[in-house]
Amino acid sequence: MASTVRTTPLDEQLTALLAVEDLTGMNALLADAAPEELAPALERLTPKRRAVAFRLLPKDRALAVFEEFSPALEGDLVQSLRDSEVAALFAGLEPDDRVQLLDELPAALAPRLLRDLTPKERELTATVLGYPKGSIGRRMSPEYVSVRAEHTAREALERVRVRVDDAETVYTLPVLGAERHVEGVVSLRDLMRAAPGTPVAELMVEAVVAAAEEDDETAARRCAERGLLALPIVDSETRLVGILTIDDAVRVLQEEESEDVARQGGVEPLRRPYLSTPIREIVSSRIVWLLVLAIGATLTVQVLSVFEETLEQVTVLALFVPLLIGTGGNTGNQAATTVTRALAIDDVRPRDLCRVLSREFRSGLLLGALLGLLGFAIAALVFEPAIGLVIGLTLVAVCTMASTVGGVMPLVARAIRVDPAVFSNPFITTFVDAIGLVVYFLIARAVLGL
Amino acid sequence: MASTVRTTPLDEQLTALLAVEDLTGMNALLADAAPEELAPALERLTPKRRAVAFRLLPKDRALAVFEEFSPALEGDLVQSLRDSEVAALFAGLEPDDRVQLLDELPAALAPRLLRDLTPKERELTATVLGYPKGSIGRRMSPEYVSVRAEHTAREALERVRVRVDDAETVYTLPVLGAERHVEGVVSLRDLMRAAPGTPVAELMVEAVVAAAEEDDETAARRCAERGLLALPIVDSETRLVGILTIDDAVRVLQEEESEDVARQGGVEPLRRPYLSTPIREIVSSRIVWLLVLAIGATLTVQVLSVFEETLEQVTVLALFVPLLIGTGGNTGNQAATTVTRALAIDDVRPRDLCRVLSREFRSGLLLGALLGLLGFAIAALVFEPAIGLVIGLTLVAVCTMASTVGGVMPLVARAIRVDPAVFSNPFITTFVDAIGLVVYFLIARAVLGL
Repeated sequence: MASTVRTTPLDEQLTALLAVEDLTGMNALLADAAPEELAPALERLTPKRRAVAFRLLPKDRALAVFEEFSPALEGDLVQSLRDSEVAALFAGLEPDDRVQLLDELPAALAPRLLRDLTPKERELTATVLGYPKGSIGRRMSPEYVSVRAEHTAREALERVRVRVDDAETVYTLPVLGAERHVEGVVSLRDLMRAAPGTPVAELMVEAVVAAAEEDDETAARRCAERGLLALPIVDSETRLVGILTIDDAVRVLQEEESEDVARQGGVEPLRRPYLSTPIREIVSSRIVWLLVLAIGATLTVQVLSVFEETLEQVTVLALFVPLLIGTGGNTGNQAATTVTRALAIDDVRPRDLCRVLSREFRSGLLLGALLGLLGFAIAALVFEPAIGLVIGLTLVAVCTMASTVGGVMPLVARAIRVDPAVFSNPFITTFVDAIGLVVYFLIARAVLGL
Repeated sequence: MASTVRTTPLDEQLTALLAVEDLTGMNALLADAAPEELAPALERLTPKRRAVAFRLLPKDRALAVFEEFSPALEGDLVQSLRDSEVAALFAGLEPDDRVQLLDELPAALAPRLLRDLTPKERELTATVLGYPKGSIGRRMSPEYVSVRAEHTAREALERVRVRVDDAETVYTLPVLGAERHVEGVVSLRDLMRAAPGTPVAELMVEAVVAAAEEDDETAARRCAERGLLALPIVDSETRLVGILTIDDAVRVLQEEESEDVARQGGVEPLRRPYLSTPIREIVSSRIVWLLVLAIGATLTVQVLSVFEETLEQVTVLALFVPLLIGTGGNTGNQAATTVTRALAIDDVRPRDLCRVLSREFRSGLLLGALLGLLGFAIAALVFEPAIGLVIGLTLVAVCTMASTVGGVMPLVARAIRVDPAVFSNPFITTFVDAIGLVVYFLIARAVLGL
């Protein structure tokens, strides 16, 4: 066959590597290949192989090659990139490999790849796009109507009328410049308000955008809080790749909210309505956390057994254990809840650690002082002044410690990329319980001279 | 003066009652007055008195009288109804009096009353409208563009073009029939899509609406969950009184969310960003809860002192106290969190009490069995079988109890009109702690034969 004669090593090497699913090897090979040989080599591969090879190209080259292809071939490529086998191949990659191997797709291609897919198909295809799980790139819609700054209001409105059926929204229109760069957005309302001849350039406003790899909650919150009907989603060079509409943004936020609320209560979020979730699933959404916490709580058993002797001497000390650790836990949770929420709505950022630390330390101290006084008074009356002193001092110490730990934990969680909601409340309680007990008995020994 | 000659007792009586701010009396008097004498009598009052008297009229009569008035007088009335003194007078009423005295305002009047007001002024005027605090009536906007079913798409679009400036949204248009009845909604998009001659009747869809006195969170959630850009707000006869746009709906939901999250952690929501809230305020947002819970926790001290003797005999029992009540608290919180959330998103309703009860009982039993087995094994190994048995049995009992109580509490809270978020988690912990200890020591006594 003529083609076999002209065969260059490149496409054969690619075929060989693909046979053993060595994507890393292909990636390296493609990175070194001379641009001029890429297009012809890829054209010679079977559609699926071509798709895989193409996807492994660095962004700039991918664009160059894509533009080399004939329209027919472009169409094929889009089809094969959507192919479930191809998708599965990339889905199989470790997330971090994926980041290394998959450069962003050219903005010119991404929307075409996602268009006319069901959300489910889209989710699958998103893996091919290389947008990480939980990124807004997986939630965006490619169905938008864009206009150009040089259009007149009339022309823009005409575009809307033509595209009105297959667009997610026509109320907020991204204004695109050369190479799909987002230059601004214009609202349908302003287009209708304006004189037909007015250029879009005069009507558009600066665009609030989100990057496709950005965390979906952050992007959704931005959309919701600015009261925007739609948020253009862009690639690293602010080229338009999709759009997030307010209703999808709200959906994202509600999911996140359910998750946070659940985690804060130490439960895994349920996948379906409570009443239709089988008991088995409810139990499994709770058991893991309960075990973790129970195991954590064995710490308290060990602590207490260390002080067992002290307990035998002064059994009355045991009476206050639940009260003291309970108060500690509550103070910790209060601090954690406040800071976690502040983090979620961006009132606080990890770099505010020191400020949060000092605020929670002072709050805790103040709370401890108030409760301590009360505790001292009551315990001194009901039992004896010495006991009162122990209780009072412990309350001050425990509240200060709990509030500080509780306030800082969420920031630590965020810093080490754990959902603050998970990490904070349940952990704090367990942690605070153990430390609290140590403090309690040390103070007791000191005061009662044991 | 001529007018004095024609003075009928009615307006004099009204004046007299108003002098002593006896709104109840006025209300009764107006309810009995013959319709034909109402309009003339009101016309003779001073603007502010007229406003107050008018506001106290039953809805149907108010409408009749309003239509009697000359346009000029209508304008005056709207003005004086907005008057801060008048508003203050009604704001002074007890909420329940208000409900008794203030019938809804005629739908024809409500939007006029709210138009062109700042949110602050609107909030004040809302008291005159008689919409309860926390109702969507206080959040709605009167700036909407409405169309009629018999309009053609062209006519409707023309209306939009004219009103585009002073409308909150032009993307969702309520379709009004006789007497402002909401017959449906039509989207700007469908108007643009349709042939110019198409009647709105063919383009409109059934309207999802909210009643003005409906809870704002419920209404906002409906708007957000259906992905609607705007929700018409109607009176008890589905007459349009305002509109809720998605961005306002999102704002409402976010406020509610912050509140729930805070309450669940036993803190009062902060009024401003965390970092800019004075320590004093942070402390006061926490101290009340801490005190309540601490006082609740004294229960545990009492329980333990009852069993002090048992403790002295077997000090080892004290070692498990934090572990056991901790686990109980966690199980309770898990159940409470799940059910509270389910309530919030309407997955569960108060009448589902029995189903929730049985589900949480079974879940708790299962969780308890799992943890109990583990607890038994460990405690039996480390200490002795008898202790293991006590721990195991207690875990079963405590988990079952905690999960059931935790699941039911939020429903109880909702039933007695307390925010479930407040009532559940912190309370459960305290409650479960006390009961848990009793169970623990009873089991211990039985098993160890003390």
